[in-house]
Amino acid sequence: MPSHRLRPGEVAVELPAAYDVGFYFVGSIRTPWARREDCPKNSGESKAVCTIAVDARYAEGLRDIETVSHLIVLYFMDEAARDILLQAPNHYKRPHGAFALRSPARPNPIACSVVRLLRVEGTSLEVIGLDCRDGTPLLDIKPYFASIDAVPDATVGWHAAERK
Amino acid sequence: MPSHRLRPGEVAVELPAAYDVGFYFVGSIRTPWARREDCPKNSGESKAVCTIAVDARYAEGLRDIETVSHLIVLYFMDEAARDILLQAPNHYKRPHGAFALRSPARPNPIACSVVRLLRVEGTSLEVIGLDCRDGTPLLDIKPYFASIDAVPDATVGWHAAERK
Repeated sequence: MPSHRLRPGEVAVELPAAYDVGFYFVGSIRTPWARREDCPKNSGESKAVCTIAVDARYAEGLRDIETVSHLIVLYFMDEAARDILLQAPNHYKRPHGAFALRSPARPNPIACSVVRLLRVEGTSLEVIGLDCRDGTPLLDIKPYFASIDAVPDATVGWHAAERK
Repeated sequence: MPSHRLRPGEVAVELPAAYDVGFYFVGSIRTPWARREDCPKNSGESKAVCTIAVDARYAEGLRDIETVSHLIVLYFMDEAARDILLQAPNHYKRPHGAFALRSPARPNPIACSVVRLLRVEGTSLEVIGLDCRDGTPLLDIKPYFASIDAVPDATVGWHAAERK
């Protein structure tokens, strides 16, 4: 049984009975948005400064991070449905597959945002470019390498075709 | 006790006793590299065509993905150490923090690669831009949006300064 009410055109899947792998929350993300409905629709929509608070246990993992201009941040969208594979967000005309969308709702709700690093103080990182609820659990931080991560001419055909 | 031998300058952490969240393997990745030591050093280093085989259970999640030129692929680096926070890879002069490196070794070994989508056949996606061992478990696929994901002028200071 899907755990969330489906919109017309949406399709849910029966998820496996058990997880295959476990991960740790390595910190949490402080943002200006207390509730999911207050959040920007994507990470490019807000210039708000957010703080990534890394747990003290992982402090050594931050060595040299202050020299990096942009980070890839992976975080767990803990309020997202995990079983809706075909989705009909309000701002699109037709349903699309979860893997063709940046929606938080997906079997593994791991969000991936590119942020600009402003400042490091101890194990706290001030960044611009996040879109999540205050208190969202952190999974990983990586340096953004333009040589492998920047594809300025990438296109999303369905999105260009039907954006309202 | 760290599970892997440390190189000089490396520091390991005692990981928490339990995981905070569980994820599903939603498919697996077929690559030309049978062993970890055969893999390219990063996802930009090889033009080999790899296949992302999504489990049939999640087929509906792929709707419209064939219209997307580039994807963000998240996968689980299942042979990576998770406890080494300060790392001294052979090809760098000094140790760096796991969160300042793209090394698979990190508390949550979730790799994140940008790939070019060549072809979709059923639930199999042919792509260029992966760097992992054949059989690597798949966690997620997302469309790459140049508007939020492309930062061509991003810099990694420590890397530019000490690349051998």
